[in-house]
Amino acid sequence: MATTQSLQEAAIALAQSRRHKDLEDLVEELRIPSISTLPERREDCLRNARWLRDRFVAMDMKTEIVDVREGGLPVVMAEWNGRPGQPHLTIYGHYDVQPVDPVDEWTSPPFEPEVRDGHLYARGAADNKGNHMTTVKAVEHLFASGGSPINLRFLLEGEEEITGPSLPQLLRARGSSLKTDSVLIWDSGMDEEGNPTLATALRGILYTELRAKGPAVDVHSGTYGGVAPNPINTLARVIGELKDRDGHVTVPGFYDAVREPGADELAEWKKKDARYSADILRMTGAKSLEGEEGFLALARAGGRPTLDANGFIGGFTGKGAKTVIPAEASAKVSMRLVPDQDWKAILAAYEKHVAALSTPGVEITVELIGSAPPVLCGVDHEAARALRAAYGEAFGRQTALIRVGGSIPVAVDFQEAVGAPLVISGIAQADCAIHSPNEHLLIDNYHRGIEAVIRFICGLAQ
Amino acid sequence: MATTQSLQEAAIALAQSRRHKDLEDLVEELRIPSISTLPERREDCLRNARWLRDRFVAMDMKTEIVDVREGGLPVVMAEWNGRPGQPHLTIYGHYDVQPVDPVDEWTSPPFEPEVRDGHLYARGAADNKGNHMTTVKAVEHLFASGGSPINLRFLLEGEEEITGPSLPQLLRARGSSLKTDSVLIWDSGMDEEGNPTLATALRGILYTELRAKGPAVDVHSGTYGGVAPNPINTLARVIGELKDRDGHVTVPGFYDAVREPGADELAEWKKKDARYSADILRMTGAKSLEGEEGFLALARAGGRPTLDANGFIGGFTGKGAKTVIPAEASAKVSMRLVPDQDWKAILAAYEKHVAALSTPGVEITVELIGSAPPVLCGVDHEAARALRAAYGEAFGRQTALIRVGGSIPVAVDFQEAVGAPLVISGIAQADCAIHSPNEHLLIDNYHRGIEAVIRFICGLAQ
Repeated sequence: MATTQSLQEAAIALAQSRRHKDLEDLVEELRIPSISTLPERREDCLRNARWLRDRFVAMDMKTEIVDVREGGLPVVMAEWNGRPGQPHLTIYGHYDVQPVDPVDEWTSPPFEPEVRDGHLYARGAADNKGNHMTTVKAVEHLFASGGSPINLRFLLEGEEEITGPSLPQLLRARGSSLKTDSVLIWDSGMDEEGNPTLATALRGILYTELRAKGPAVDVHSGTYGGVAPNPINTLARVIGELKDRDGHVTVPGFYDAVREPGADELAEWKKKDARYSADILRMTGAKSLEGEEGFLALARAGGRPTLDANGFIGGFTGKGAKTVIPAEASAKVSMRLVPDQDWKAILAAYEKHVAALSTPGVEITVELIGSAPPVLCGVDHEAARALRAAYGEAFGRQTALIRVGGSIPVAVDFQEAVGAPLVISGIAQADCAIHSPNEHLLIDNYHRGIEAVIRFICGLAQ
Repeated sequence: MATTQSLQEAAIALAQSRRHKDLEDLVEELRIPSISTLPERREDCLRNARWLRDRFVAMDMKTEIVDVREGGLPVVMAEWNGRPGQPHLTIYGHYDVQPVDPVDEWTSPPFEPEVRDGHLYARGAADNKGNHMTTVKAVEHLFASGGSPINLRFLLEGEEEITGPSLPQLLRARGSSLKTDSVLIWDSGMDEEGNPTLATALRGILYTELRAKGPAVDVHSGTYGGVAPNPINTLARVIGELKDRDGHVTVPGFYDAVREPGADELAEWKKKDARYSADILRMTGAKSLEGEEGFLALARAGGRPTLDANGFIGGFTGKGAKTVIPAEASAKVSMRLVPDQDWKAILAAYEKHVAALSTPGVEITVELIGSAPPVLCGVDHEAARALRAAYGEAFGRQTALIRVGGSIPVAVDFQEAVGAPLVISGIAQADCAIHSPNEHLLIDNYHRGIEAVIRFICGLAQ
């Protein structure tokens, strides 16, 4: 049997000689419009799952498309245990993508991948197809070079963008049979300075929909203006008051459980904050950053909880004028939570607060759309060390320890159901525009990412 | 030549014998989807204008479809001056209607008129086809009975629902040739108790669109939540703060020019307020009325200015979740103005106030969509007396003197360009649901309305 060292060298040589094909395969997956939130895209999501299955089958991995629940999107699970006695690694990713609206802001169509200036533009290029394909390719090259030096499992879900329950249910149902030594959650990316990252914490999320009802039917704003309750005005007032003038969330008790950053972390943030702020200002194109007064931008983006309205609709929204007081209005409002906030306690306080802020003629209901607790992860373990070493070789850069502003809901499920150390990282560059028009991936990161994953896997071998 | 008395009797007898045909003709007009705000309905609007022209031509009135401006909707003008020495009456109405959304809330399709329980359901049944057809029918029956006892002019516009400039331009351009002794503005209706009304004042309107811009593109609320400005949150906050907790508009100087009601008017409001409030509560189906604390509901609905958001859109509004901070959000916000508020001064103060309420990272622009000054009209003149007498005969009820909450923008143009006394009334019942789904007209009011207009016209003869 080949040594781990020779396997690694052969796989990397293969990756370097097959760059064109590796990119082509990613482009092929990106052509599948696997938008999990749209029922009309269900068949595309299933097609994407089969596409991934076929790749694992071609590697002789034991592969299964797991339909966890009626009407859900399946988990693609692939397992290889050809190295008894060696460590076991679980690799997590997701094959579903975000919707593409507003579609007219895309320079090239979201599902017709296009290379411009060394970047690959497509929905999913970064989140998560560009990421998970680096792991698929790394394993393909290892198998083509003689085999993997460790045992492996892929778990690629189709409900990440809708915070769906299939993978969590699967993890909890099969927890004991999913033993593993570490979990690579491969769904994030580089920092603003282009350094690879390793997450020390993920924010949780609480995503709600508020529905405000005023009159039983739409009424005329001339005849009824001044007497009829207006659900748009009330919902706007409520959302406006959920944060004070200084950007602090007003839900009672919201900040009570927030864990302060460590002194080292704070020192690191202070050092980087000016550059980070300038980068974010440039990347968002906003005229000024906002957020809680009195906190560093880096703290606000990762260490502090937030509240944002993600959507609002009500009344007449066409061109021109319609003098209507509508019967209802609705909004999506989400909060990002940090350790040690408890989303259930926050939800209860938020529901009470929304009811208290409403006006007498308007009833607002709160629907929970999705949630995930915040996650803390240590970096003092074998897998974290192996990834940092692999990044150093593949990218020639130090790995930054960061707090991730986004949520990876299944991280907590892995933590609770599987119990192994989490390694949360990925190779998307910071300005990749995930969830936005013109999502794109720096192609060089893709190829170096494949090499980094090969090195990481080989680094775990004993 | 027949006496006015015999003409009136003959015309009323004709109206009573032709009720079926009179309703059928209204139904025919209601089948035309003349929505002026939708460019794709332009041809329907023009067809409606021709439909009215043909009716006037059939009466041998001198008729013209006046294209006032490029791209506008024409005014249908019909004139008959066969009674030299007799008074001249101008009758105003409009053939355009409001959009029909949300269309799934209609019990029967909006342009397929349906009779249910003595009411005719269709978009425009009340506003304004049901109204103006009572005047068209009254004049038809008079001509069929031997002629009108006075001189007549119809001015039916197609831009009322979009506050368009065609009729105002026509009035100002031809003012001197449009001499008349009174103007019947036939676009309102009965009060909540079923009494005919005569307006002593109309509210004006200031209709604006607010556009809020935050990031240059939509960004991810996990990665950027806490640092990126959110235009939905800011726009919601601004709209929320445009009124205080007690329902008072916060625009500086907003109430400065508001004229207090007279003692008689206030006494009348006090007497009627409890019943009016109960009626409005029932008609709107709201759980509670709202509006400025410290004012009667009747004052709030007609005598006080208001501010309402008529529409709001931004971000993700589909089913489920999308974790986005959108690049922009927009809202329609309108104000109803009362004598002696000046809409230009209010607009300037409002623009300044909106800018002051915005947050550092969000830019809000204010676009003026439409405006009309408030109008005061006396009732101590021949035409008002004639209408009150006609109502007494046709409906067997006293005429209530009211303030109209809605705006009739051309009223001020008539007042300024033509100068004759305004008689502002109409026969739509109070719960007719104009601008809303299931707009409907009490059919009995239509037939009695035709008789009332015959009596009114004959009452003006000397």
